[in-house]
Amino acid sequence: MSDARRFVELQDPLRMYRGGKLPSVTIAYETWGKLRGRGDNALLLFTGLSPSAHAASSAVDPSPGWWEYMIGPGKSIDTERFFVIAINSLGSCFGSTGPASCNPMTGKPYRLDFPKLSVEDIVAAARHACRALGIDHVHTVAGSSLGGMDALAYAMMYPGTYRDIISISAAAQATPFAIALRSIQREAVRADPTWAGGNYAPDKGPKDGLRVARELGILTYRSAEEWLQRFDRERIEGADASADPFAMAFQVQSYMDANARKFADVFDANCFLYLSQAMDLFDMAEHGNGRLESAIRKVDAKRALVAGVTTDWLFPLWQQRQIAELLEHAGVAVSYHELESIQGHDAFLIDRERFAPMIAEFLAGMPDA
Amino acid sequence: MSDARRFVELQDPLRMYRGGKLPSVTIAYETWGKLRGRGDNALLLFTGLSPSAHAASSAVDPSPGWWEYMIGPGKSIDTERFFVIAINSLGSCFGSTGPASCNPMTGKPYRLDFPKLSVEDIVAAARHACRALGIDHVHTVAGSSLGGMDALAYAMMYPGTYRDIISISAAAQATPFAIALRSIQREAVRADPTWAGGNYAPDKGPKDGLRVARELGILTYRSAEEWLQRFDRERIEGADASADPFAMAFQVQSYMDANARKFADVFDANCFLYLSQAMDLFDMAEHGNGRLESAIRKVDAKRALVAGVTTDWLFPLWQQRQIAELLEHAGVAVSYHELESIQGHDAFLIDRERFAPMIAEFLAGMPDA
Repeated sequence: MSDARRFVELQDPLRMYRGGKLPSVTIAYETWGKLRGRGDNALLLFTGLSPSAHAASSAVDPSPGWWEYMIGPGKSIDTERFFVIAINSLGSCFGSTGPASCNPMTGKPYRLDFPKLSVEDIVAAARHACRALGIDHVHTVAGSSLGGMDALAYAMMYPGTYRDIISISAAAQATPFAIALRSIQREAVRADPTWAGGNYAPDKGPKDGLRVARELGILTYRSAEEWLQRFDRERIEGADASADPFAMAFQVQSYMDANARKFADVFDANCFLYLSQAMDLFDMAEHGNGRLESAIRKVDAKRALVAGVTTDWLFPLWQQRQIAELLEHAGVAVSYHELESIQGHDAFLIDRERFAPMIAEFLAGMPDA
Repeated sequence: MSDARRFVELQDPLRMYRGGKLPSVTIAYETWGKLRGRGDNALLLFTGLSPSAHAASSAVDPSPGWWEYMIGPGKSIDTERFFVIAINSLGSCFGSTGPASCNPMTGKPYRLDFPKLSVEDIVAAARHACRALGIDHVHTVAGSSLGGMDALAYAMMYPGTYRDIISISAAAQATPFAIALRSIQREAVRADPTWAGGNYAPDKGPKDGLRVARELGILTYRSAEEWLQRFDRERIEGADASADPFAMAFQVQSYMDANARKFADVFDANCFLYLSQAMDLFDMAEHGNGRLESAIRKVDAKRALVAGVTTDWLFPLWQQRQIAELLEHAGVAVSYHELESIQGHDAFLIDRERFAPMIAEFLAGMPDA
């Protein structure tokens, strides 16, 4: 399959937010549409923990992207008007520098020698990448989940370099519940002996641990209501005849298992650990002497779209309301939406009916207006 | 420490609900108070997945039991009036026959040769145990969580042998969400190579897998609100100095870890798998040609206390309402309570303030009245 990814090398070493530095950094990205000026029509898109920069199809790579319904000519994020640039996060394993990349100092993968990763580093690397590409100022910074944390951090760290922000199902700081949950996912990976303290051979990683971690991810990205409507207690045919007394018996198990295996086949375990922990550590209050209000005052967006989903129990509505209120107090014109979607945290990936019009309306008239 | 457990051998082999049989069955139990007649003042108590029959302290074993605040002289379940008998579930590992017990046919632990376990089997074994002890008819059958499923199943399977029922945070059938969650817990155990297809040596079980499974249990037994109030983003002192880049950093992690390790030290992994799967398989509708309404019509309780907790997302309120409505349609006088507790599914173990008066009121005047 052809690959629409491009790569940019940052000009300088990257000093990491919590110490250490990366001597050289590559950032993988994809773009759609045509750049005007130095970024007046640019929409900088951050991703969740697991996706690559392939957010949408293109002539070069016609395979559907993770936000296919949203991005393209005439779509809500209209690539006839916007130049969209999607970033593969620093620390990930789809082309950007991360724990699975070669450490130039040793000629071997970084593995756990990769410095501690923070949302701030993902954002700084993306900012440097944009500048290296001649994009000084963007129209909109957008993201969902980890990508929403990225968008908020970007807005706080680089005032004056963007106009609007879109924050979907994000958080101004990780909750103890989400920390606990991600912590269990990481324990599942680390408890797999194949992980070997991070020193597994490339492509020989702890797939069982990663599969368990991803099953838990899948569970938390959706809602109990959705499972009930979709699977109820539907059985897997013939399961009772299995010699394995704990063979999967219900369709919901089969769905989770299939999806988790796909993830475990393509995602690097150490990258997962680093990105997962970066989410736990995210706390905008660190930038405001312990106060979220002080930190968010640094945001100078003209407008913000803040949206959450009623059935999202990982990044619950109260956190979306909190973001909206903080931004309003900081003087940003906030468009706030609580979407009645059944798909939980992952709704933005699936629920076109609710998300597409909301984004289209927010971007309407822009950037031509 | 002295042990107040007693043991009863069932007189006959136990035919299991989903096939297979156990040639001999021991049931461990504890009692408090004095039995009157053949059970007129007996309260039969089923437990959740993990506890033993040690529900309360006694002269023989003064260590606090898992429902210490509830059971005792002058307490809500008043042992000066009631004879309380708590049952260690069939399939568990605290004295009752289970996968870790010796298979008399081989002289070795059953392990995965234990037949498939169902809630119906736990209940049948308890019923036979009671009869062997001369208890033909009980005043009240009670339980929470798995124990609540047991109480409902008992009421359905043995009409005419009890007067009232108490069902707390239970379910008439397992939801796909709960199935998914327990399925991940079981995968965490099975993915641990030490599990060895169930053939680990006694006391050399898959502690890492069991620890991950239990962490997930702990997470789901409480509420996100409770974590927020209790731990917020409080750090573990000195965590940043650890050489382990993924060392626990937050108090919530430390809490989960300590609790999960305790569980992994005492609970048998195969027993966990069997009991966990029994909960998934529980569906009262199987006893009513696929219809819950038909199944529950078999219940002939005089009165039922049905209670749930607002923050319980594992056995959510709609399932408690469903139980209450089904029982009402079956002609039972239902006392239904939605408790505003922050402790989620485990609230019955902790929230004395809300649970103790409710149970006391339900049992008031009984069995003397």
